Amino acid sequence: MIQKPRGTRDFLPEEMSRRRYVEDKLRKIFRSFGYREVQTPTFEHLELFTAKSGESIVNEMYVFRDKSGRELALRPELTAPVIRMYHEKLKREPKPLKLFYFGNCYRYDRPQKARYREFTQAGCELIGYNSDLYLAELIALAHNALKKVGLNDIELRIGNLDLVSEMLDKIGMEEKIRKEIFPLIDKKCFEEMKRILLEKGFSEGEIENLENFFDCNELEELKEFVDDESVSNFERVLGYLELFGVKDFKVDMSIVRGLDYYQGLVFEIDFPFLGAEKQICGGGCYELLSIFGKETLPTAGFAIGFDRVMIALEETSFSFPDDRIDVYVIPLSEELLGYSIEISNKLRERGFLVDIELGGREIRKALRHASNIGARNAILIGKKEFSEKKVTIRNMDTGEQKTIALDQALELIR
Amino acid sequence: MIQKPRGTRDFLPEEMSRRRYVEDKLRKIFRSFGYREVQTPTFEHLELFTAKSGESIVNEMYVFRDKSGRELALRPELTAPVIRMYHEKLKREPKPLKLFYFGNCYRYDRPQKARYREFTQAGCELIGYNSDLYLAELIALAHNALKKVGLNDIELRIGNLDLVSEMLDKIGMEEKIRKEIFPLIDKKCFEEMKRILLEKGFSEGEIENLENFFDCNELEELKEFVDDESVSNFERVLGYLELFGVKDFKVDMSIVRGLDYYQGLVFEIDFPFLGAEKQICGGGCYELLSIFGKETLPTAGFAIGFDRVMIALEETSFSFPDDRIDVYVIPLSEELLGYSIEISNKLRERGFLVDIELGGREIRKALRHASNIGARNAILIGKKEFSEKKVTIRNMDTGEQKTIALDQALELIR
Repeated sequence: MIQKPRGTRDFLPEEMSRRRYVEDKLRKIFRSFGYREVQTPTFEHLELFTAKSGESIVNEMYVFRDKSGRELALRPELTAPVIRMYHEKLKREPKPLKLFYFGNCYRYDRPQKARYREFTQAGCELIGYNSDLYLAELIALAHNALKKVGLNDIELRIGNLDLVSEMLDKIGMEEKIRKEIFPLIDKKCFEEMKRILLEKGFSEGEIENLENFFDCNELEELKEFVDDESVSNFERVLGYLELFGVKDFKVDMSIVRGLDYYQGLVFEIDFPFLGAEKQICGGGCYELLSIFGKETLPTAGFAIGFDRVMIALEETSFSFPDDRIDVYVIPLSEELLGYSIEISNKLRERGFLVDIELGGREIRKALRHASNIGARNAILIGKKEFSEKKVTIRNMDTGEQKTIALDQALELIR
Repeated sequence: MIQKPRGTRDFLPEEMSRRRYVEDKLRKIFRSFGYREVQTPTFEHLELFTAKSGESIVNEMYVFRDKSGRELALRPELTAPVIRMYHEKLKREPKPLKLFYFGNCYRYDRPQKARYREFTQAGCELIGYNSDLYLAELIALAHNALKKVGLNDIELRIGNLDLVSEMLDKIGMEEKIRKEIFPLIDKKCFEEMKRILLEKGFSEGEIENLENFFDCNELEELKEFVDDESVSNFERVLGYLELFGVKDFKVDMSIVRGLDYYQGLVFEIDFPFLGAEKQICGGGCYELLSIFGKETLPTAGFAIGFDRVMIALEETSFSFPDDRIDVYVIPLSEELLGYSIEISNKLRERGFLVDIELGGREIRKALRHASNIGARNAILIGKKEFSEKKVTIRNMDTGEQKTIALDQALELIR
């Protein structure tokens, strides 16, 4: 039996209506901040993703060849494609350029709770900014968007990869070892990190010091590990956040992000209620333009895990607007079909969701069907209604029923 | 240099906003007829598409293997996936079940005008109906949706594969030959059809007769070729269309549809202005459920070529709503940032699209930037404005400028 591929999902009508509701809300918020929507292809040349992240990422992607032999990959994320598009088509646009996207992404790993092989990301990219105020606004936008969508109990954590580098330079850690331990720090596997660093010849003291650094939640403490000036720079950007109304956040040096193109300020937003899958947003400053040439520009962005946002809203019983049909029209005989269709179309013109009985069900069965499909109201059209230019409207929740003029019925439905 | 893959497209902000506008309009119309949105994965098991269409379709698809060796394909269309989903998850739903979708599809052929390797389809599926009235409503919905979206000069053509079969049975044409000539009929390559049929031993007279049949535009004429009763059945369904307000259509026996699962009534809608790429919608009755088991149900649907609809609207200078930012807020000094951000947020709360100068441009340059990004208005905030709790608003189109209370400014922007 042919079924859907492993790790993918079908979205049924009720869930789909909820997803569109949240998508529309996010889109409105992104747009209200002057961001504009773009869309890129579902697959890209493989090199776009390996350029910065190396060949190892290939194992986590769906890769295939086109007929001319070039390797394509279903996109694992949307930042690199947006920067590719920027470089191909938008270089002359006024800066900063503020772009957002909604798009499906693909990863080839073991399906598990809240991790699918096809998943949806919503994100913003800020290209070519000359002040950290823009960066603060970007973080505030992510924070704001999640709150406005209905997730009140979120936690913003902010890290800084420049400070992490400075710290690792101080203890003389080579690039290769950093690459090895970053994924462990990302997953907070400090025991495993310790084991590897001991193997590489770092001392217990150095490792403890490093662990204390990654544990840092206070700017003052950070000054024990890195230069005061570096900490002050970080403090300045964090100070800007308050201007944008973001007062609740934690400093978290252990944010190193999974992808290799981040640098400088990075951040993550959690919805702690979700436990192990709590992270619903991640972003920061990055450098990808160098893939395409010498030009570089400050670039930053974030991606929201749309599916996790949906899970978070559902698991906290968010009250979504319902998706019920407003009216089920029931012609009581075949000659009344024309009039009934006319009534249906009038209702549709006024923005109502209308279905109509065309299969000749008798009245009791038609009403049961109206109830089964969740219609709010039924409109019954018999000979009497037709000759008097009226309709009989029945509220399907209360059972209340009246024969009135169509205009009056419209009022009742509204 | 890494570029987008051949045959794919990037959608820049202006075009994307137009696409969302048309998508929303179509969604509203589908919903107003009681159809509900669903979404399926971007890729499916290859067998889903080859089950009815045979292995030959593989050459036109993007096919790849997952790690367990099963073959997956980027979907070339959405009817088979929706029916697969129906069978997996929706079998118990009340009938008829009315579903719609928007989704990207993929085909691996030579890119050419208005034919892309990644393209978007919008469509409806009607599952389990017991009266041809539902079928007529479905056709009316497709017709209606295209008109409402802004395409007035469309042409609906309706064919009937049962009549085609009856005709081919009469001249004793085997299944294998039908498969060979259907794609030719679909493309109206009658010369090529003739050549093949002559080779297969059909007489000039039989072929001429066949050509006359495919040329038929009148129900009366059809009676010369097939049974009166078959024609009357067809006539009855066409008669229903009028009930739904569809009066303009042509009978066209040469509609055979490219896919192998169609049967019975089929239809296509053209926008003749587009010339060779005029077909913007196609659909009809089909049979796919038998892939999954013994159950069958009457099923019908249509798909709209979303990209061609966009081309049609653009080439006929449809006036899309613009996508301009309502206000560009310019703080005239750094101390005024907090107040300016507050004003921006108030405007956003009221639904306006607002960007703000955070890069410290001096007033002349900031106004130029506001103009470059297409803002309708600029709001200037200086010390005087701050102390008097006012704003200076400048209409970027007329240059008119006033210093007034924020509430008054809101009126002006609206």
